Amino acid sequence: MKSESLKLSKKLGGKIEIRSKVKLTKKTLPILYTPGVAEVSRAIAKDKKLSKLYTMRKNTVAVISDGSAVLGLGNIGPEAALPVMEGKALLFKELGGVDAIPIVLATQDTEEIIKTIKYLAPTFGGINLEDICAPRCFEIEERLKKELDIPVFHDDQHGTAIVVLAGLINALKVVKKNIFQIKIVISGSGAAGVAIAKLLIKYGAKNIIMLDRMGIIYKERDGGFNDSKMEIARITNPENVRGNIRDALTGADVFIGVSAPNILTEEDISKMNKYAIVFAMANPIPEIIPERAKAGGAFIVATGRSDYANQINNVMAFPGIFRGVLDNNIKIITDQHKIKVALAIASLIKNPNRGKIIPEALDRRVAKKVASVFRK
Amino acid sequence: MKSESLKLSKKLGGKIEIRSKVKLTKKTLPILYTPGVAEVSRAIAKDKKLSKLYTMRKNTVAVISDGSAVLGLGNIGPEAALPVMEGKALLFKELGGVDAIPIVLATQDTEEIIKTIKYLAPTFGGINLEDICAPRCFEIEERLKKELDIPVFHDDQHGTAIVVLAGLINALKVVKKNIFQIKIVISGSGAAGVAIAKLLIKYGAKNIIMLDRMGIIYKERDGGFNDSKMEIARITNPENVRGNIRDALTGADVFIGVSAPNILTEEDISKMNKYAIVFAMANPIPEIIPERAKAGGAFIVATGRSDYANQINNVMAFPGIFRGVLDNNIKIITDQHKIKVALAIASLIKNPNRGKIIPEALDRRVAKKVASVFRK
Repeated sequence: MKSESLKLSKKLGGKIEIRSKVKLTKKTLPILYTPGVAEVSRAIAKDKKLSKLYTMRKNTVAVISDGSAVLGLGNIGPEAALPVMEGKALLFKELGGVDAIPIVLATQDTEEIIKTIKYLAPTFGGINLEDICAPRCFEIEERLKKELDIPVFHDDQHGTAIVVLAGLINALKVVKKNIFQIKIVISGSGAAGVAIAKLLIKYGAKNIIMLDRMGIIYKERDGGFNDSKMEIARITNPENVRGNIRDALTGADVFIGVSAPNILTEEDISKMNKYAIVFAMANPIPEIIPERAKAGGAFIVATGRSDYANQINNVMAFPGIFRGVLDNNIKIITDQHKIKVALAIASLIKNPNRGKIIPEALDRRVAKKVASVFRK
Repeated sequence: MKSESLKLSKKLGGKIEIRSKVKLTKKTLPILYTPGVAEVSRAIAKDKKLSKLYTMRKNTVAVISDGSAVLGLGNIGPEAALPVMEGKALLFKELGGVDAIPIVLATQDTEEIIKTIKYLAPTFGGINLEDICAPRCFEIEERLKKELDIPVFHDDQHGTAIVVLAGLINALKVVKKNIFQIKIVISGSGAAGVAIAKLLIKYGAKNIIMLDRMGIIYKERDGGFNDSKMEIARITNPENVRGNIRDALTGADVFIGVSAPNILTEEDISKMNKYAIVFAMANPIPEIIPERAKAGGAFIVATGRSDYANQINNVMAFPGIFRGVLDNNIKIITDQHKIKVALAIASLIKNPNRGKIIPEALDRRVAKKVASVFRK
């Protein structure tokens, strides 16, 4: 798989290309370009909103990264992030029919990134932020949502949170537990972890314990706090539990891992409640492999991998979400939208069971179902 | 033609789209995206130069405008410039096989434009600047050429200059005059006019008189001067002629217009030398229509229009130039390259005559011939 990726890149250069929608002939040239195109430009100059109907903006989003948090590889820079953005653009088109343009930026300064994206905005109908590290990503997204009139979506946060919620909705059906009553442990407080915690709370979760590299996050903890962790400390851990991941897992119903490979043992899992749900999504090596999680007593196991059952994959969210917002001229993707998308994805599995809580990554029904959520 | 452009835009939205080069299946997904793509990212992280081989950079240029000087429409802003950039991107692909991505910027500040393009550079293999007004365009291009390691080309300047030179080379053959001995009048001192003057001088022209809205540019003239006009005053008009366009045309061999519609009369043309060459390229309405230029005594007439003989169209330059620089990893497009490109275009007309000094705009041989200039 790995050497195949390299081989393919050497052969193709990029994975995507630009295509004309109209044949170029002596007859079409003056319609597609000068002098005919001047009429389109004049119409838009009079009313800028028409650019969302008469140009590529109608169906085009930017997939923008600063290369600071790429896959599990960390801060590898914009050039090295580009192949990932291309893959994402390919998925956008194949699954959602959305034209996505990879853009990698040679700056990792929050204000410069915000300003640059604002300068780019007249080209696009939406902005998909990608692989930008926390906590920078939170401010960039919040500011752009306020300051731009096109939808802005940080996929590492919300795409992940939505698909986790979709899987959890079905997993809870299988084990007959209720979101209001369960204890959830989230390992990893980066972009994905924070967004998952917030979305689960919006959906009704009352007892989430979140961990970073220093252990459980609680209100009076010293050190390692930024604004987003302060907020996490405020909205999670109602009993103010302290300690490490083993302490957190004792009596937990759900484990959600967006952290690091191989941090859990069978024994850790055995401390969880009966019918434990384990989403071990560190990529490519999960927090605990499914075989061992089950040996430790987990009833339902999901990972980010395609070679195990129950793959939690963002690809179920972003193509349909942007299809929906572009088609319906939605400017802000709200928490209600996100919950509806999760419910829509979950609804595609008619009779969930421990081996099947979520659709296949490439299930072509998903994007259509997701997009329908945004219909006005 | 005009209403057809609007109709097409309403129907299609954009004129170009993103396409995947590889079919998306369960088998190709992990090769195109995570986890396989990580291997490509790791390779590039180790050696950034590989991004020019393993990613879309290999075949992708940005077509970037701030919307400040769009066609003949002036400063209509980025949204209204986008349909023009899309048309350009379409031509890039259809004629040069180059993937071009339109980018319009919501800033018209020189420093901000330079900085933004530097931030975008890791995404692209080259930068085509487009429809940015003078004198801002000169500084932006000069600075980016120095500060980036990918080719930067302002098409309104150099594309126009190259195709004008190509046409002039053949026109001079027809009238049996020599570039060293003729008097050339250039009307219009924007991006195109300045670049034409400079390239003709590099090619050997000794006596160019250039005009702006205030008349002939000469060394001691008061007012209306910026850095680029100071340079023009220094390098043109060796006899320090003063006056208006009629004064300039007296005894001229060549008129090159990149200025405004209908500024010349038959009588003006009649003041030129025998076998006068008139390139009246204001768009869509030339400085003088060909019928009247000929009535005034012009022997060879060219315009920017497809409905007259001898269309001077940039489309003969940019697709082949970027094809050539991308394929040969050229970082700076030099004046020598530009002259060679002009000669290459001119060479495609075996026996030039007054009705045929330049290939057709969509002559498919042109881009290939132009690209061959850059072969090392």
